[in-house]
Amino acid sequence: MCRWLAYSGSPVLAEELLFKPTHSLIDQSLHSKLGATTTNGDGFGLGWYGEGEAPALFKSIEPAWNDQNLREVAGQIRTSLFFAHVRASTGAPVQRTNCHPFRYGRWMWMHNGGITGFPHLKRDLDAVVDPDLYPYIEGSTDSEVLFYLALTMGLMDDPPAAVERAVGFVEDVAARHRVMHPVQMTVATSDGESVWGFRYSSVGKSRSLFYSAEVATMRKLHPELPVLRLLGEESRLIVSEPLRDLPGAWHEVPESRWGVIRPDGDDEMHRFRPFSAPRLV
Amino acid sequence: MCRWLAYSGSPVLAEELLFKPTHSLIDQSLHSKLGATTTNGDGFGLGWYGEGEAPALFKSIEPAWNDQNLREVAGQIRTSLFFAHVRASTGAPVQRTNCHPFRYGRWMWMHNGGITGFPHLKRDLDAVVDPDLYPYIEGSTDSEVLFYLALTMGLMDDPPAAVERAVGFVEDVAARHRVMHPVQMTVATSDGESVWGFRYSSVGKSRSLFYSAEVATMRKLHPELPVLRLLGEESRLIVSEPLRDLPGAWHEVPESRWGVIRPDGDDEMHRFRPFSAPRLV
Amino acid sequence: MCRWLAYSGSPVLAEELLFKPTHSLIDQSLHSKLGATTTNGDGFGLGWYGEGEAPALFKSIEPAWNDQNLREVAGQIRTSLFFAHVRASTGAPVQRTNCHPFRYGRWMWMHNGGITGFPHLKRDLDAVVDPDLYPYIEGSTDSEVLFYLALTMGLMDDPPAAVERAVGFVEDVAARHRVMHPVQMTVATSDGESVWGFRYSSVGKSRSLFYSAEVATMRKLHPELPVLRLLGEESRLIVSEPLRDLPGAWHEVPESRWGVIRPDGDDEMHRFRPFSAPRLV
Amino acid sequence: MCRWLAYSGSPVLAEELLFKPTHSLIDQSLHSKLGATTTNGDGFGLGWYGEGEAPALFKSIEPAWNDQNLREVAGQIRTSLFFAHVRASTGAPVQRTNCHPFRYGRWMWMHNGGITGFPHLKRDLDAVVDPDLYPYIEGSTDSEVLFYLALTMGLMDDPPAAVERAVGFVEDVAARHRVMHPVQMTVATSDGESVWGFRYSSVGKSRSLFYSAEVATMRKLHPELPVLRLLGEESRLIVSEPLRDLPGAWHEVPESRWGVIRPDGDDEMHRFRPFSAPRLV
Repeated sequence: MCRWLAYSGSPVLAEELLFKPTHSLIDQSLHSKLGATTTNGDGFGLGWYGEGEAPALFKSIEPAWNDQNLREVAGQIRTSLFFAHVRASTGAPVQRTNCHPFRYGRWMWMHNGGITGFPHLKRDLDAVVDPDLYPYIEGSTDSEVLFYLALTMGLMDDPPAAVERAVGFVEDVAARHRVMHPVQMTVATSDGESVWGFRYSSVGKSRSLFYSAEVATMRKLHPELPVLRLLGEESRLIVSEPLRDLPGAWHEVPESRWGVIRPDGDDEMHRFRPFSAPRLV
Repeated sequence: MCRWLAYSGSPVLAEELLFKPTHSLIDQSLHSKLGATTTNGDGFGLGWYGEGEAPALFKSIEPAWNDQNLREVAGQIRTSLFFAHVRASTGAPVQRTNCHPFRYGRWMWMHNGGITGFPHLKRDLDAVVDPDLYPYIEGSTDSEVLFYLALTMGLMDDPPAAVERAVGFVEDVAARHRVMHPVQMTVATSDGESVWGFRYSSVGKSRSLFYSAEVATMRKLHPELPVLRLLGEESRLIVSEPLRDLPGAWHEVPESRWGVIRPDGDDEMHRFRPFSAPRLV
Repeated sequence: MCRWLAYSGSPVLAEELLFKPTHSLIDQSLHSKLGATTTNGDGFGLGWYGEGEAPALFKSIEPAWNDQNLREVAGQIRTSLFFAHVRASTGAPVQRTNCHPFRYGRWMWMHNGGITGFPHLKRDLDAVVDPDLYPYIEGSTDSEVLFYLALTMGLMDDPPAAVERAVGFVEDVAARHRVMHPVQMTVATSDGESVWGFRYSSVGKSRSLFYSAEVATMRKLHPELPVLRLLGEESRLIVSEPLRDLPGAWHEVPESRWGVIRPDGDDEMHRFRPFSAPRLV
Repeated sequence: MCRWLAYSGSPVLAEELLFKPTHSLIDQSLHSKLGATTTNGDGFGLGWYGEGEAPALFKSIEPAWNDQNLREVAGQIRTSLFFAHVRASTGAPVQRTNCHPFRYGRWMWMHNGGITGFPHLKRDLDAVVDPDLYPYIEGSTDSEVLFYLALTMGLMDDPPAAVERAVGFVEDVAARHRVMHPVQMTVATSDGESVWGFRYSSVGKSRSLFYSAEVATMRKLHPELPVLRLLGEESRLIVSEPLRDLPGAWHEVPESRWGVIRPDGDDEMHRFRPFSAPRLV
């Protein structure tokens, strides 16, 4: 089980959210080393929009808590939109090309969850990826294939519809292989302006997804957190897992939903309905 | 341009051939760091038959000359059949899953060369790999896909015919994509008993391939080399590149040939003729 | 807090004890990833006696559960004496030279614990290391300095006395720097024949240390464990931490003790008394 | 033999000088992989002044030409003062703590060269480092010990005098150990404002050191280089090795000299005279 965080808002040093505060919002999520349950020590990634059009990616196979370069770089990145991901491999090798976020052009994608039976479905899924996109697949994870399926099915034009088509297609392929409940996911994707979040699982019991309350609310609830003073009103966090000890700070995304955070604050949330597309097979 | 070495013969410590002698047969090949031309610093691999049925693989993305674990392990491996490979990437990421040798069951495979235009051909090549084998592809190199094409086309039953089919198929796919002269290769493969070597390129100017003279001959030519005293009569080396300063020690494999080294000394060499198999497409 | 294991006995594949059995003696210790409390993801090491006089060391900064090379190598090492160590750093960088076991000549050394205030004591400790030994210190841990202090003070002649002197010296230096209770340790060291184990802490509340019951006893208690059938009568394990669910299998080493396991079965256990040696300062 | 580059001047993306231009000033230096002579594949480092007081360090043990993170980060760092270093180890392990530049507070230090007989001199050199500084030594290179000797002897107050004292001290210690001509060095150090460069060797045949001509001159000589259009008039490069094919662009620093580049353009160059300080021993 991976964990991730997406931030959109006023420009902030990544370390403010990832490392600095002793009891920061992120601290515990990334330092799951100290957490109660699982370890996310199979690599990590940081993606952000800065110089140039495309996001920059800093990814490593070292556990995030050990990576000195991550600390150095996080202390220098001032950005208004970034993704952070710590990985717990479910089988695919621990290598940089399997670390999230993934990138295509201006787009980033990260995922917590998995595709059941992926080794057996992979060939049929690969076969549908747009031939022009296929060469850009670098790793061997289900997460990256899902990204390229979504790109193939229109992510850059209509992200929610494309992900609904991609997920529906995976479910169709899985059904043909008699794999039950194949998709488990919380996903974040961005074009550098908006951030889309998805919570869905074929079985209807999805991994958790949370978004932050308004900064003003959080400040009132938690005056002891200095990082909140650095954030502008429009700033938002989406996280794959509830953070402890911050009552009122987080809203849970309900089952089978997608939402979008826009820089102008015009946020939305809707039902997520996988679109079965047998004609593509 | 990668470099590789295959050894078959009397049990020997890998370090005897890879590290120990100041002017060993292998020393300069692996330490191409000190060589005149290119650097092979993009990972390495060592595969050997020891405990169990399948070969063991020690592979790393560190330059071979730096890897302290390689030295330690090479000093403990006593084996009668091993492959060693140092990689110079032609594009695919430097990660363990892209290091040679590759393994499937009892079989090992390593390659020097490449498939021209591979990123554009990859999807059509992937699509032909046996669905039962497809999940075992771990990396993103042309070399590994060529291995799985050969496995799909019968490597385990008739290695030379299978490689001729696989290469012919790659040439067919390349022709459809208007890629000229797609295949450049020297390949070694083994089932743990015999070693097959291949030298071929579509353009007819293949990278070099050499096999060692009989040990008795080499001892006479080079009494100064202590490592030769350790080797039994049946021992053979195949190397991707001529080693300097050992006149008489190496026989060049001619263009477009395959050969096999068998433990009983019943060696053969034949023409290599790619087999065009458009029916498979 | 690190964890370690020392094995002495009939030749066995390292993987039999480290990986293979689903409920092996070692499994849970090494896979502390799955454990209830802490993560030992800051590197690991395997040291064993095989070819040659000196032990071989395979050490890596990757978490042990991720390292594919560890699995490969552990499946090929057949040895009658090996050390395994998984590290949880208490500050020193995660790099190969800081991974245990450490080696000098035929000797190996591994440690769980630490020296309180080590950064401030290091200079005074370094200054006492034998000038001929000093160049062999490779890393920056307290554990390695303790090894070199013990070597300086006679480890190769009388291991228990040397460790008592080294620990006493550290306590003297710490006292001068007003550092209370500086030493916390369980240590294993070997010359390739015997294995010495130490349990001690200045404060008198030492980390745990256990040794295995006689193999015959363990077989009777746990007929379900196939690995026990592979071990000869004289085989012994020493481990830094109790393994769960094996009642009767482990004897705890009491506070402030050292013991030795000899190949002839002539084992001993005695009190450990640090030897204050102010004259050396 | 390592290679390094120091840049001071108008804010520039690091990649503009390190990667981007096909025939950039730096390209060939860093890509010594493609060069005629040696390989600098034993790690690299990038240090720069950005957010906060202290410089940030991105260092890795992978060959610079392979490190995808280096490309990503270099494309995001806009800085007016940075150091870059590619390492060819002369013995010390390839680990992050042995990569240059080294840092203490606001100060950075990088070095090409070495101290002859360092393993035997190390203990006597270590013993003179200020006890308050000693805990900050992280690696095992001669270069870092030289930095801490210089810090001990006043680097932060008077850099040239401190380096003269440190080098003189190393020569004194070496003489006592009967080591001839111990020091070989080109060094760069900075406090975030000025950059000091040193060229010296005990034997009087020092490795090369060059500084760039004025930007106006370089633009006139090389109108084909777009990177020059990005640099302000006060910009300067210091490099450890002459770059090919740019006649007139580089001035060699003569033997036994130190120089300083100041942001106000008030540059200086003087003789470097090691200061024998036997009283310190």
